[in-house]
Amino acid sequence: MTVEAAFHERPGISEARSQYYGRLAEKSARPLWEVLSSLVTPVPRDRTSAAIWRYREMRPLISEGARLITPEEAERRVLILENPGLPGSAQITQTLYAGLQMIAPGEVAPSHRHVASALRYVMEGEGAYTAVNGERTTMRPGDFILTPSWQWHDHGNPGGSEVVWLDGLDIPIANFFCTSFAQHHPQTTQPVAHRPGDALHQFGMGLLPLEYKLDGMSAPVFVYPFERSQCALQHLQASGHHNPWHGIKLQYSNPATGGSPMPTISAFLQLLPAGFKGKSYRSTDATVFCASSGRGRTWVGDTELAWETNDVFVVPSWQPVRHEAEEESILFSFSDRVAQKALGIWREEYLEADQEPVQANV
Amino acid sequence: MTVEAAFHERPGISEARSQYYGRLAEKSARPLWEVLSSLVTPVPRDRTSAAIWRYREMRPLISEGARLITPEEAERRVLILENPGLPGSAQITQTLYAGLQMIAPGEVAPSHRHVASALRYVMEGEGAYTAVNGERTTMRPGDFILTPSWQWHDHGNPGGSEVVWLDGLDIPIANFFCTSFAQHHPQTTQPVAHRPGDALHQFGMGLLPLEYKLDGMSAPVFVYPFERSQCALQHLQASGHHNPWHGIKLQYSNPATGGSPMPTISAFLQLLPAGFKGKSYRSTDATVFCASSGRGRTWVGDTELAWETNDVFVVPSWQPVRHEAEEESILFSFSDRVAQKALGIWREEYLEADQEPVQANV
Amino acid sequence: MTVEAAFHERPGISEARSQYYGRLAEKSARPLWEVLSSLVTPVPRDRTSAAIWRYREMRPLISEGARLITPEEAERRVLILENPGLPGSAQITQTLYAGLQMIAPGEVAPSHRHVASALRYVMEGEGAYTAVNGERTTMRPGDFILTPSWQWHDHGNPGGSEVVWLDGLDIPIANFFCTSFAQHHPQTTQPVAHRPGDALHQFGMGLLPLEYKLDGMSAPVFVYPFERSQCALQHLQASGHHNPWHGIKLQYSNPATGGSPMPTISAFLQLLPAGFKGKSYRSTDATVFCASSGRGRTWVGDTELAWETNDVFVVPSWQPVRHEAEEESILFSFSDRVAQKALGIWREEYLEADQEPVQANV
Amino acid sequence: MTVEAAFHERPGISEARSQYYGRLAEKSARPLWEVLSSLVTPVPRDRTSAAIWRYREMRPLISEGARLITPEEAERRVLILENPGLPGSAQITQTLYAGLQMIAPGEVAPSHRHVASALRYVMEGEGAYTAVNGERTTMRPGDFILTPSWQWHDHGNPGGSEVVWLDGLDIPIANFFCTSFAQHHPQTTQPVAHRPGDALHQFGMGLLPLEYKLDGMSAPVFVYPFERSQCALQHLQASGHHNPWHGIKLQYSNPATGGSPMPTISAFLQLLPAGFKGKSYRSTDATVFCASSGRGRTWVGDTELAWETNDVFVVPSWQPVRHEAEEESILFSFSDRVAQKALGIWREEYLEADQEPVQANV
Repeated sequence: MTVEAAFHERPGISEARSQYYGRLAEKSARPLWEVLSSLVTPVPRDRTSAAIWRYREMRPLISEGARLITPEEAERRVLILENPGLPGSAQITQTLYAGLQMIAPGEVAPSHRHVASALRYVMEGEGAYTAVNGERTTMRPGDFILTPSWQWHDHGNPGGSEVVWLDGLDIPIANFFCTSFAQHHPQTTQPVAHRPGDALHQFGMGLLPLEYKLDGMSAPVFVYPFERSQCALQHLQASGHHNPWHGIKLQYSNPATGGSPMPTISAFLQLLPAGFKGKSYRSTDATVFCASSGRGRTWVGDTELAWETNDVFVVPSWQPVRHEAEEESILFSFSDRVAQKALGIWREEYLEADQEPVQANV
Repeated sequence: MTVEAAFHERPGISEARSQYYGRLAEKSARPLWEVLSSLVTPVPRDRTSAAIWRYREMRPLISEGARLITPEEAERRVLILENPGLPGSAQITQTLYAGLQMIAPGEVAPSHRHVASALRYVMEGEGAYTAVNGERTTMRPGDFILTPSWQWHDHGNPGGSEVVWLDGLDIPIANFFCTSFAQHHPQTTQPVAHRPGDALHQFGMGLLPLEYKLDGMSAPVFVYPFERSQCALQHLQASGHHNPWHGIKLQYSNPATGGSPMPTISAFLQLLPAGFKGKSYRSTDATVFCASSGRGRTWVGDTELAWETNDVFVVPSWQPVRHEAEEESILFSFSDRVAQKALGIWREEYLEADQEPVQANV
Repeated sequence: MTVEAAFHERPGISEARSQYYGRLAEKSARPLWEVLSSLVTPVPRDRTSAAIWRYREMRPLISEGARLITPEEAERRVLILENPGLPGSAQITQTLYAGLQMIAPGEVAPSHRHVASALRYVMEGEGAYTAVNGERTTMRPGDFILTPSWQWHDHGNPGGSEVVWLDGLDIPIANFFCTSFAQHHPQTTQPVAHRPGDALHQFGMGLLPLEYKLDGMSAPVFVYPFERSQCALQHLQASGHHNPWHGIKLQYSNPATGGSPMPTISAFLQLLPAGFKGKSYRSTDATVFCASSGRGRTWVGDTELAWETNDVFVVPSWQPVRHEAEEESILFSFSDRVAQKALGIWREEYLEADQEPVQANV
Repeated sequence: MTVEAAFHERPGISEARSQYYGRLAEKSARPLWEVLSSLVTPVPRDRTSAAIWRYREMRPLISEGARLITPEEAERRVLILENPGLPGSAQITQTLYAGLQMIAPGEVAPSHRHVASALRYVMEGEGAYTAVNGERTTMRPGDFILTPSWQWHDHGNPGGSEVVWLDGLDIPIANFFCTSFAQHHPQTTQPVAHRPGDALHQFGMGLLPLEYKLDGMSAPVFVYPFERSQCALQHLQASGHHNPWHGIKLQYSNPATGGSPMPTISAFLQLLPAGFKGKSYRSTDATVFCASSGRGRTWVGDTELAWETNDVFVVPSWQPVRHEAEEESILFSFSDRVAQKALGIWREEYLEADQEPVQANV
């Protein structure tokens, strides 16, 4: 990103001004003009940087964690992916948290609920489940699973293989707004109240229950099976749908509203055909990507991120991004786009357009 | 507020674990279980504290500032009210900025626009104007004025008296989400394109322009004259409207939607009758109050804030609040409530209710 | 309007077909192709015609009615304005009912409620009231008053002069959809529960009650005083606002939503400057006009309707309309536009535009 | 239904009144009090009656029609199902039209569009298609297909068997509101622009296209395959979902909004287990049912309608309804419920509830 001139030139300092500023400080006040240029910037100033976590490096560390701590002791055995630009923050972007969670055969992660909304994108293994509000869904690679705000959830693995997934949460948002609440369920594992598939069959087949009223702001269906998502992408690819910036890109949708599955996190799935060389775009929603399959590279400004299956990488706000795929690849991604839109502050720009950059929402 | 136990007990540390954590750090990863209790808290953890800025102390500092710097040099001659719990942050709450701005006779504050939304609540003086999108509105004490996101605005004072107002902005929100943009208008003072009162007569008289479609997410009317707001409060007082927690309290409304005038900031006006002793409540939206008139005190937990006309005070998130008025008083207030609601994370609790605390939005 | 060819040419009849049609009829069936051209028409086929009711002719009939029947006996002493194209139907358009109601000093019209939504536009006299849900509003010429669906309402005249107003209801809609319900209040006059002006001060001053949730689909404020509406029009006229088709035209608005005050009826107020010669437009919502003041003429296709104060006239669907004013005039109007929009079937066309007709919602 | 007393007692007639009424009629006016009781009724007055069309009787008539007229000549070869209470009206309810359409091998029904919205529920045969906006969908029994307002559509049958379906349209609504428009496509068969399944894969798999904005008010997916709908019902039956009034009942949903697939017509699918004996309910939306499979009977007040596969029957407004199934049955149904809700006039009552009747929307 080119250097942008400051919005406001800081006035010179004098002895009189300096003394005055000191007296202001005693009253918990300070002159705006001394800090205006850092508060109101001409373009977004993101303290995070582009970064990648390679699965082949992280996977052994995940297994090592499994030997060092149990899920019960850890509550959730997760390796937080922390943005190098924000060390010690537990943030992968300024507003989002991401981590790699593993649950081994026979383990359970105890039931709790919190204001923070969470998503899971399954990377490896089969046979574990996520339980939400009394229904368990079996986790399979590529499945997109929600555990929405303030809903009881737990995980367990009655199967035979280690199951690893990417966690995405809005913890920084909940804490920035000072709205965190959390509780443990009285039981380690919440009781099963529904048959597997009940939510999907009630809400995910093109119909809704009679006179259904959505309760809350999250999708009533909490699993988006990869089988269906992949089928959609492949059909559209075969039909020649193609976006020069994004390949074939879809957004996960709440069937009861058509909006985002959760009020703070948007999630997307895109297919990049083999040989895809995308055009450049930028948007204000810093975005976390997970290469669900395939191999390619993403340019963030001048930074090259070469990725392969299950690598996770992050793109800061307003940095130009373009994707290339060496082989057919599927990228899962999530960001705070829906939150930014709800607050009227989201902006996007398509670069390398035939004519001028196309700006949305200005 | 009672001390709340941590959500999760941090596991013990061993040599093996310690080494493991070090290797994680090299990969920009860290164990969630080491920080879970500070990330996911059982109740909101607000780093700000209750505080008050007394007008009789701030007013001389405002005048002193006027002798030391011009609005042109300062861009905006504002004393930021900085929360004592967040020194150096330019934040009055975790999500909001507040300041005291003054414009002296003959001065102009140059025209600019930014993504951050702003409100003005006029405290003293008459004869200045705020211009928004080509229309100037004369500022009078008690007027609530908007300069919404990305709309050109400037101020000027062709009158004879110093005019002081409270600024409220969502700068921390714009920066947290990495969405800041700002521009200067090519002219110091934007051209006048409309007659004063045009917006109010188009949008504020119970009618809207034929086939009106709202552009953006902010109210098309940008001044809420105190004359009307006060009339509403006084009528309802005379009619016996009375809320044991809030006195007579109304929220400013976008006539084109019925929602908040701006997508990130809610604003309220309330009348406390002389002798009012309110019950206690708490909500997750930390709130900035300005005593528009009268004299009283507000209890925030165990902290007493005694206020009189034009004092500004702030209440952190989830702290129990109750108001008392020695004489009939009018309190203006603003918070990020509308933003929290849009994100599905706002919560409120009425304490001292006849039965149980009443919790909203849980 | 030019004659439009039928959408479908009716097939010829044969002996075999004729016998077949007879056998269908025995089974409550009939061939679509025999009636298709009358069912699915290329342009709207409105059975009503343009018509005018002159106040100087109707006023004596109103007074005569007052001598022949009491409001108690009549329930409502109203002269229905019945479209000449639909004799016996009690419809002024295919979807709306209109009538002239009078209440003399000392009279009361008993309290009832019904699913049909009603509006009142006051034409003459002062001192009567309309009571809605426990609040009475004094009726003054030019006031626009709602008695929304299923809300108790009654009228009374404690004053000294006869008060006349125009009633507009959606009775044909309620009956077409088979949704009519109606009840009498246990008391002739519902108890007074609120001070006059309470609704206006709660909902009509730019603010709303704290955490207000709209109950139902109608405006919580039920009077739009002429003083304010007229002030808006006159201000905008002075500012040079001017629409070549409509003069200065505003739509009444629900302050809690920005939408229509009632879910089935839209209402408008427009000022035609002296000498105004409007361009032609047409829309699918047949519209009832009341000349609140002034004198002019309206062309509906080739039909000229010359109107003066308190005349009521009606324009059918999709007929080209243009207004002319000899002196400054104010026209009140209402239609089912909001209902058509809610059903996705409203269409409008601006004729005499500089280039092509501009069609909305096609 | 019990007889309901009139809302208002008609006043007596006198010579003076009679003469007066005559003079009113000359001015296209009439006294409300003479007709009030028929205009404003205490309960809905539906002029239609419960009725059934048996497929075994209608099917031969459909085939006979195929020998007597071609689709090109007929435009659409449909037998209208006309309510016995409204002979000559082409209405099955006061607001809806229904018909049985057949297309034989090799036939095409020419491309046109109209404001009226249409649904198709496939009864018999396979191999025909419906084309909407350039995409063809193969019609299979139980499929629910939309041809929304003002969208080009045509049908063709390249297969080998006669295909029969139920048509449902809102023609009476379009004509009541005077909003009918219709056009023929320049070509008999609109060009194919999309691959079969494109809409379903874009909108029906739990995701939506990136930054999708709904155009219009109808679902962007225009086929709801029976395979999926049936799967949903059977899963929920196996899970023990069961409503004492409706069995297992779902409503078709627009994936982009969660609302009705079209703005004027709601559609439902319900499974009645073998031996089901439903409780009684009534609602203001008169409803058309089609027995997609199974055998049973429906009571409408005291009228028994015994149905089997592909029979069509209609229930008037506000009549108590209860269903019984001799064998496991699937009922498709549609009504104007979504339109009534949009207008704020829909009402429903669950009878035989444990306590009082439960009324919605009063």
